Amino acid sequence: MAAAAGVVVANGSGGADTTAAFKEVYSKLKEEMLADPAFEFTDESLQWIDRMVDYNVLGGKCNRGLSVIDSYKILKGVDVLSKEETFLACTLGWCIEWLQAYFLVLDDIMDNSQTRRGQPCWFRVPQVGLIAVNDGIILRNHISRILQRHFKGKPYYVDLIDLFNEVEFKTASGQLLDLITTHEGEKDLSKYNLTVHRRIVQYKTAYYSFYLPVACALLLAGENLDNFGDVRNILVEMGTYFQVQDDYLDCFGDPEFIGKIGTDIEDYKCSWLVVQALERANGTQKKILFENYGKFDPACVAKVKDLYKELNLEGVFHEYEKESYNKLIADIEAQPSKAVQTVLKSFLHKIYKRDK
Amino acid sequence: MAAAAGVVVANGSGGADTTAAFKEVYSKLKEEMLADPAFEFTDESLQWIDRMVDYNVLGGKCNRGLSVIDSYKILKGVDVLSKEETFLACTLGWCIEWLQAYFLVLDDIMDNSQTRRGQPCWFRVPQVGLIAVNDGIILRNHISRILQRHFKGKPYYVDLIDLFNEVEFKTASGQLLDLITTHEGEKDLSKYNLTVHRRIVQYKTAYYSFYLPVACALLLAGENLDNFGDVRNILVEMGTYFQVQDDYLDCFGDPEFIGKIGTDIEDYKCSWLVVQALERANGTQKKILFENYGKFDPACVAKVKDLYKELNLEGVFHEYEKESYNKLIADIEAQPSKAVQTVLKSFLHKIYKRDK
Repeated sequence: MAAAAGVVVANGSGGADTTAAFKEVYSKLKEEMLADPAFEFTDESLQWIDRMVDYNVLGGKCNRGLSVIDSYKILKGVDVLSKEETFLACTLGWCIEWLQAYFLVLDDIMDNSQTRRGQPCWFRVPQVGLIAVNDGIILRNHISRILQRHFKGKPYYVDLIDLFNEVEFKTASGQLLDLITTHEGEKDLSKYNLTVHRRIVQYKTAYYSFYLPVACALLLAGENLDNFGDVRNILVEMGTYFQVQDDYLDCFGDPEFIGKIGTDIEDYKCSWLVVQALERANGTQKKILFENYGKFDPACVAKVKDLYKELNLEGVFHEYEKESYNKLIADIEAQPSKAVQTVLKSFLHKIYKRDK
Repeated sequence: MAAAAGVVVANGSGGADTTAAFKEVYSKLKEEMLADPAFEFTDESLQWIDRMVDYNVLGGKCNRGLSVIDSYKILKGVDVLSKEETFLACTLGWCIEWLQAYFLVLDDIMDNSQTRRGQPCWFRVPQVGLIAVNDGIILRNHISRILQRHFKGKPYYVDLIDLFNEVEFKTASGQLLDLITTHEGEKDLSKYNLTVHRRIVQYKTAYYSFYLPVACALLLAGENLDNFGDVRNILVEMGTYFQVQDDYLDCFGDPEFIGKIGTDIEDYKCSWLVVQALERANGTQKKILFENYGKFDPACVAKVKDLYKELNLEGVFHEYEKESYNKLIADIEAQPSKAVQTVLKSFLHKIYKRDK
């Protein structure tokens, strides 16, 4: 499974106005972080945080963040929000972007990655190194500071904190599962199966990328999340579907179009493709997988890809995509609220049959 | 400045009964973490978390944690707490121990340390490595899970979360300051002075080691922390004093007695001693410091120690210790509540004139 973290979640989120408002809120939030009375900054630490936040929070497409605003508008049934509402929705959107930045900074250290969003990973920047671990922590702490500053006193303040905490816990637990399953040194393909793949994907990616933006919008709209268990399940399902696409595109997508060359096979990732292959392979084919998966030799990679084609994984994927879509649409249409249906469909249509 | 993290905070905290009750609560809390419905554990991840929590949360002296119970008893004016009260006080104590574990796991990675509490640092354990970064995150998340499970619904739940968040933010900010001030590669003693030292110590150590346990006890006793700004200042002052002692003992303490050989000079630490030396040194003496501080050569270390003796830093320390004690006692006795006075004095007397 490739880390879908850097990939577009919701193409076309937010119009130009929304994007402009969103950017503006970022500047304000960052300024507040740099003037936080809970710490006596030195000039040096001020400059450090300023640069660190820009480097890591910006540079993505902000689709998770922007989708809070879009979802909130749909839930309220309006095209234009008040200034106050816009600010609060943008602020929650940025909290998700900050959360994403925190995960990426630390994931890149753990994965020993080279680049992120077209620039060196933060820990690879000269003078940074493992200070990046603490920077990750500070990014997480900024979320609590932002929530406290702007939401303390709101009736949903506790729910907001609990939500971010629970989603963070799920994500970190998914990351642990991924780390210990695909652990370097004891490569063992027999540990990979659909259940394992599903669990990693759901916890590591789906909750924070799909459920969290909608849950933020629901809380902002005054809803009780306990009443939206189905919505949560649908979004987690959608997140799983999104990650399966990502795994598929890593191997079968057009590198020119996707903007990167997939290396899931070389990296021994618990990809949906290898899991499907294991499920379908006969003895001889399994042997090919065990002998060639996770090797950097292009000949080994080619053998794995040939096997994927032999097993018609492209067809298997398109079948999965169709079924998944139909199931999601049916579940969405069973939702009592039309507004909620619209929110969910807008997510689905942004990702269905994407080719990058 | 040496990381005081592993050092005794409050010698003699907790009687045998308290300690037994405290241990028992640990087992319960860990069990709950391993059965958390927010994540579908696999056998492998269950074993990992079980071992990781034991390895990192246990093994210290638990003085921070135990002091929550002691402080709460004093505030309530009782010798024996109800079962429920004991459980809640122990639980908050463990949250502080979990917080400490989280900081230590990550600090050790950032400092590239070898051992901690007499065993290899967690990230040095075979098969762990940088997965330890995520384990640190999980330890932090456990605190939120524990607080939610046992305190949600209590009138002080939000205050408890805000407290842990704020203290964590201060600690991480202090750690940043420490990291960028004593940064490898650009060793520059002229950046060290009393203000810098004080700021690092207060934020990095004092808030979570001294203020947090008492603040937990106050919240548990139904108090509003806004009314205890002075108590906070006194505890932060005490934490500073504690760290100055630590810096002093690193050089002048008896290694046999302290249980470790100090390496602050070699490690280029922003120790209270070097800061005092810089304050008092003439041109020639400053040159000695600049040329020999932060070098592993024993001859260089000896030159620095000789200079410390020449500048009578032992006398300077004892003078500081006396003044600091008198000031703290005066501030404590100005407190309107006798119970609060007793809590503060019990902390002070546990650390005053300690020699290890």
